[in-house]
Amino acid sequence: MHSLSELQSQVKQIFDSESFLHEPKELYQPIEYTISLGGKRIRPLLLLAANDLFGGETGNCRDAAIAIELFHNFTLLHDDLMDQSPIRRGQPTVYRKWNENTAILSGDAMHILAWQYILKKPHKNLHDILLTFQQTSLEVHHGQQYDINFEQQQNVSIDDYITMIRLKTAVLLACALKIGALLADAPQDDIDNLYNFGIDIGLAFQLRDDLLDTYGDTKTFGKQTGTDIKDNKKTFLLLKAIEKGSPQQQARLRELFSTTPDNPDAKIKEVIDIYNQLGIRNDTELLIRQYHTSAIQYLEKINTPDTAKQPLIQLSEKLLDRNI
Amino acid sequence: MHSLSELQSQVKQIFDSESFLHEPKELYQPIEYTISLGGKRIRPLLLLAANDLFGGETGNCRDAAIAIELFHNFTLLHDDLMDQSPIRRGQPTVYRKWNENTAILSGDAMHILAWQYILKKPHKNLHDILLTFQQTSLEVHHGQQYDINFEQQQNVSIDDYITMIRLKTAVLLACALKIGALLADAPQDDIDNLYNFGIDIGLAFQLRDDLLDTYGDTKTFGKQTGTDIKDNKKTFLLLKAIEKGSPQQQARLRELFSTTPDNPDAKIKEVIDIYNQLGIRNDTELLIRQYHTSAIQYLEKINTPDTAKQPLIQLSEKLLDRNI
Repeated sequence: MHSLSELQSQVKQIFDSESFLHEPKELYQPIEYTISLGGKRIRPLLLLAANDLFGGETGNCRDAAIAIELFHNFTLLHDDLMDQSPIRRGQPTVYRKWNENTAILSGDAMHILAWQYILKKPHKNLHDILLTFQQTSLEVHHGQQYDINFEQQQNVSIDDYITMIRLKTAVLLACALKIGALLADAPQDDIDNLYNFGIDIGLAFQLRDDLLDTYGDTKTFGKQTGTDIKDNKKTFLLLKAIEKGSPQQQARLRELFSTTPDNPDAKIKEVIDIYNQLGIRNDTELLIRQYHTSAIQYLEKINTPDTAKQPLIQLSEKLLDRNI
Repeated sequence: MHSLSELQSQVKQIFDSESFLHEPKELYQPIEYTISLGGKRIRPLLLLAANDLFGGETGNCRDAAIAIELFHNFTLLHDDLMDQSPIRRGQPTVYRKWNENTAILSGDAMHILAWQYILKKPHKNLHDILLTFQQTSLEVHHGQQYDINFEQQQNVSIDDYITMIRLKTAVLLACALKIGALLADAPQDDIDNLYNFGIDIGLAFQLRDDLLDTYGDTKTFGKQTGTDIKDNKKTFLLLKAIEKGSPQQQARLRELFSTTPDNPDAKIKEVIDIYNQLGIRNDTELLIRQYHTSAIQYLEKINTPDTAKQPLIQLSEKLLDRNI
C-alpha cells in the first residue's frame, strides 16, 4: 500500500521517463508536446490508486496509465480544434502551434498509441480491460456529441445534462479505476463499486467545474470566470435556474443566453444576479456534496481495509476542494 | 473452400445486414453514410479469402471484416477533410455534406467502432490479431505523414516513395490477410508468406493507381486522369522520370511540378511527353509485374493445395487488371 503522495510520485516518474518522439517526427512532436504540457494526471493517478487498493503491482500499471492519459489528451487535442480553443495549460494548442491537419493526424496517431500501450503485455484480464477501454472511449464520444447537440437544442433537462457529463467526463475516471482494479485482479463486486465511486466523483468533479466557472476565484481557479455564461453554455447552473425561476426569470435567462455581446460583463453580472436570487450556488454545492457522499458510500462497500482506501478518499477530497 | 464470387457474396451480405445507426444519430449517420457508399470492399474480401484458404469458418470473420472496413473508411473520412476533397464515390464527402467538426468527431467514433468489432469475441489468437491491427493502424498513419512530408521535400528517392506506399496502402491489405489467417489459426510460416503476398500486391496496386492516374482511360478508371500531375504529386512516374531524365528534362520536370496553372492541360501534356520520351509507362508496368510475380511466389510457398489459392490469385489479377 502506498500513500497518495507516493502514488503521485510514481505517476510523475512514469511520465518523466517516457518519450513519444519517434519517426516521422512531424507526427510525434505534437504528441510529445501535448503530453509534456502536463496537467493533473488524474486518470493515471486513479488507475494506480485502484490497483494499489487491491495490492496490485504498480509496475503492471505503467502502460495502462500511459494509455489512458494518451486517450484523454487525444480527445482534448481534437476538442480544441473543434472548439477553436487557442490556449490550453497556458500554451498554444496543437492546431495553433502547427496547423489543423497536424491536429487531426497527430490526434489520430495519439489515439492509436493509447491502444498500443494498453495492448503491450498479455494479462489474464486483458480482454475485459480492452472492452472497458473501448466502450468508455465510445461513451466519451457520445458525451461530446450530446454536448454539441445541446448547443442547438431548446429544451435540455437536468437529467439530459447529467447523462451528458456522465458520458463526457465521469466514465473515463471510472474506467481508469476499473482498469487499475482489473490489473490487480480484484473481485467483480468490488470493481463494480469502485466504478460507481468513479462515476459519482466524476459527476461531482464536473459540477464543481461548472460552479467554479461562474463563482470561482480567478487566481485559484486558474481560468477566467464567466466564460460559460459568455459562451451561452447550458450548464447545471443555468438549467437549475430555468427550472426554479419565475416565468419572467426564465424568459430573461433564455433571452440573455441567446446573445453574444462584445463586452459580456453586464450579461454575466445580470445572470449571476438571477442565480443569486434563486440560490443556485447553494443548489449546486448541495448536489456536489450528494454525489461525493454517494461516491464514498460505494467505496465503503469495497472489501478492503479502511486504511487502504485513504488515498482514494484524499484524492476525491482534493478533486472537489478547489477554492471557490 | 469457396470461389471468389462466393466470397464476394459473403462480403456483400455482411455489409448489407449491418447497420451503424445508433444514438446519438448525429454521430452515427455520417458513419452509416460512409459505409453505405460502398467501394470495392477489398480488405474484407482479402480477410475472408485468407481465412477460407486455411479452412476457417466464415462466420468467425464477420466482425473482423467489418472492423477493417471501418478503419479504412475512417482514414478516408479524415483524409478527405485534410485534403479538402469534396467528392468520394460520386457523393459529397462527410465534411461537405455535414461540416468539418462532424467529420472529425464521427471519424473518431468510427475508429473506435473498428476496435469494438475486432474485440467482440474472444479467440485464442485475439492478442496477436489486436497487435497486428494496432501496429498496422499506426503504420498507415506513418505513411500518411510521409506522403504529406513529400509535398514539401525537394528530394524524394524511389526507395522513400516505395516505403511510403507500403505504409499508406500495402500494410492494410497485408493486415487483412494476416487477420483472416490468424482467425483460421494458420501456421506462422504460412501467415508470414501470406503477409508478404499482401505487401507486394499492395505495392503493385498503388503503382497501378499511379499509372492509371496518368495513362488511364477516364471511362474505365472512373476518375479524371492527370490529377497527380496537376496537383504536383510526387508519384513513382515522376520520380522515375527525374532519375532517368537528362539534366534538362529533370530541370523542366522540377519547374513544371512547382506550378499550378488555372488550365493544367498544357502542363499535363508536356509532362506526359517527357514520360513518353523516357519510357516511364513501360518502367512502371514492369515494376508492377515484378511485384505481382513476387506476390505469387510468396503465395506458392504456402502449404495448402493449389486449388485453394485460386480465389486469391484471381483477386490479385482483378486488382491489377483495370484497363489502362
